[in-house]
Amino acid sequence: MEGNFIKIAQNAKIASQKAASLSTDIKNSALEKIANALEENKTQIFEANKKDIESAENLLQTGEITQSTFNRLKLDDNKMRDMVLGIRDIAKLQDPIGKKLLVRELDEGLTLYKISCPIGVLGIIFEARPDVISQISSLAIKSSNAVILKGGKESKNTNEKILEIINGALDTISGFPKNMIQQVFRRDDVAQMLKCDKYIDLIIPRGGNKLVEYIKENTNIAVLGHASGICHIYVDKSADINMASKIVIDAKTQYPSACNSVETLLIHKDFPKSDDLLASLQLSEVEIIQKPKSWDVEYGEKTLAYKFVESVDEAIEHINTYGSGHTDSIITNDINNAEKFMNEVDSAGVYFNASTRFADGFRYGFGAEVGISTNKTHARGPVGLEGLTIYKYKLIGSGHIVDDYVKGLKQFHHKDL
Amino acid sequence: MEGNFIKIAQNAKIASQKAASLSTDIKNSALEKIANALEENKTQIFEANKKDIESAENLLQTGEITQSTFNRLKLDDNKMRDMVLGIRDIAKLQDPIGKKLLVRELDEGLTLYKISCPIGVLGIIFEARPDVISQISSLAIKSSNAVILKGGKESKNTNEKILEIINGALDTISGFPKNMIQQVFRRDDVAQMLKCDKYIDLIIPRGGNKLVEYIKENTNIAVLGHASGICHIYVDKSADINMASKIVIDAKTQYPSACNSVETLLIHKDFPKSDDLLASLQLSEVEIIQKPKSWDVEYGEKTLAYKFVESVDEAIEHINTYGSGHTDSIITNDINNAEKFMNEVDSAGVYFNASTRFADGFRYGFGAEVGISTNKTHARGPVGLEGLTIYKYKLIGSGHIVDDYVKGLKQFHHKDL
Repeated sequence: MEGNFIKIAQNAKIASQKAASLSTDIKNSALEKIANALEENKTQIFEANKKDIESAENLLQTGEITQSTFNRLKLDDNKMRDMVLGIRDIAKLQDPIGKKLLVRELDEGLTLYKISCPIGVLGIIFEARPDVISQISSLAIKSSNAVILKGGKESKNTNEKILEIINGALDTISGFPKNMIQQVFRRDDVAQMLKCDKYIDLIIPRGGNKLVEYIKENTNIAVLGHASGICHIYVDKSADINMASKIVIDAKTQYPSACNSVETLLIHKDFPKSDDLLASLQLSEVEIIQKPKSWDVEYGEKTLAYKFVESVDEAIEHINTYGSGHTDSIITNDINNAEKFMNEVDSAGVYFNASTRFADGFRYGFGAEVGISTNKTHARGPVGLEGLTIYKYKLIGSGHIVDDYVKGLKQFHHKDL
Repeated sequence: MEGNFIKIAQNAKIASQKAASLSTDIKNSALEKIANALEENKTQIFEANKKDIESAENLLQTGEITQSTFNRLKLDDNKMRDMVLGIRDIAKLQDPIGKKLLVRELDEGLTLYKISCPIGVLGIIFEARPDVISQISSLAIKSSNAVILKGGKESKNTNEKILEIINGALDTISGFPKNMIQQVFRRDDVAQMLKCDKYIDLIIPRGGNKLVEYIKENTNIAVLGHASGICHIYVDKSADINMASKIVIDAKTQYPSACNSVETLLIHKDFPKSDDLLASLQLSEVEIIQKPKSWDVEYGEKTLAYKFVESVDEAIEHINTYGSGHTDSIITNDINNAEKFMNEVDSAGVYFNASTRFADGFRYGFGAEVGISTNKTHARGPVGLEGLTIYKYKLIGSGHIVDDYVKGLKQFHHKDL
């Protein structure tokens, strides 16, 4: 059994190399077949889900899982419809693979192409949300990446059934690589996945802070995601009180458990309406804390820490010290302060007179969201399909050698086509 | 002394946040001042270099350093001229920061900008090549990144003098952030740098395989580079013998110690001119080995392993198994095999009828080269200034909140501008 994971990873690598040449048509028809198969077999999925739910009810009573984990585990007709809709939406998106990012004639008859291509093998580690399987599988297929899924054991029956249906649909497509979508279940598989940098090119954790932090600490493989979302709003001296109040209330209360909700409010000490602002928050049932134990807490509920600052510089410094590089907003009528804030705050999203809750791939118009990244390399902020691609350079010559250029017999002319 | 490195890294982070707003003019004038200062003070640099050379002569005699390390250490008028020329070339390049990668109106009065920005703090670990300092410092300045340099102890005197001159030039520029370019020397500083993921955003190793492998194994920070360059040429059944011979000789002998030199030749078993091909290599003083101990050796000299394969598929499989994902070339007259090869070989460069030696930032027309990356995320292949950038999303509204869109009072229209 020990070599099991390595074999799975090797098979994924082989699949990913075949997948690099899949046409857009074959990928879209695969997605359509998966959507149809899930619709046609939803009774089977609900039956499998019922088994998981029954076990989970016991875990809920003993306190081994939370109510929100239980809720996420449960599939119903609405969730099934969204799952299938999500797959069809991904089919409609532009193919991110095979785009010509650069075409440059280096010299006569010697042309360089920079072409977008899949990353290779994705490792996805997620908690008890069976809908993640169809979403990530679809994103992987559309971007020609192979994927190894590791879900929570609480949804094992549901996950297995969904994957069986997905792979059943893929099996009917001639020329579609085997082992594009694989699933593992054992706890030890996570440890093995994190060590498997020979075959896995990118890990995407979908889950709480602790899961993401654990993964980031324990692998050399690139990780796409964010551990925490400690977002700030800074209300500058010249801010409009109505706008400030409306934006802070939206950012805190519209969906408090979202990663793009605000956790800390910074107010310029000379903002004349600070009492009104704090009162409006209390009216919206926000619990405000002036001296929190620490400034890097993600409350995830209607709790907001606040602090008065001397200047926009102090606000920027606070954010760069305690923030998570996710999304931070300034409310001001002073365009210079806004520009300074947006340039110097080192976060994926820097907003001016807008709610932090806009940080989302769908709201940005990406059509699908892989997740939100606080990385400083590869992909940052809400990540669409493009985040699952890299590029390769194709060079096409007719016998060209470097020695001719070193000796000065030929010269590069670098003409972009 | 223990907290020393952390302090340096914190200062670099602060500098990087200030650097994000530097104008193109101030950066280019900084580069010009550095170039002038190095020219004006070259006598001092040669004196410092002389001290290093004297110590190195002893190390050379006792075998503690190699002749090639010794050669790289030694500065002369030619190297100084190239250093200064390199800085002026970087000043001439387009500013990679502040580019609008996307401008999208999400709704009336709510506009999203995706803007290229610096990564933050770069950690550079290099061996005894004092010219790396001016090159990397210039690339960092042009891309608004702060940098911490860790060079080999053999060139300590030279490195210190060069950095003193660089920072002397930067000090004369009002508004230029302090601590943009810092240097560390102690062996322990490498270990500390690799652990410093709180402040350092990207590590770029410049040196041999062992250094790069050690770094990749021992840090959670993103690493840009390549450990080895095991490049292949596959000579297909239909290849032209003259072209094949010319390209393989170029790729092996033009500069055998380069990472883009070929190490393994794969020949289709039915290629009718294989004897002629091998004979031509021997005529060019290439040592050819049919049964190497292993297929993943970077010879770095005029030695070439070779093997007969059954098909283009076997060639692709061999390359994907034993290659380093650097650069691989097919010589063929069969366009279908060429396309298959370029799609399925999972390398940064996939070439058709051209020498692997073209894999180089200058030959690709990038104007400057950060290095060559075999990563599957962020940057791949020869990396120019763009590889030292990421992006942030600026969202500018006038009081926009998400609740209006969730409730259906407003709708996104996602208009690209």
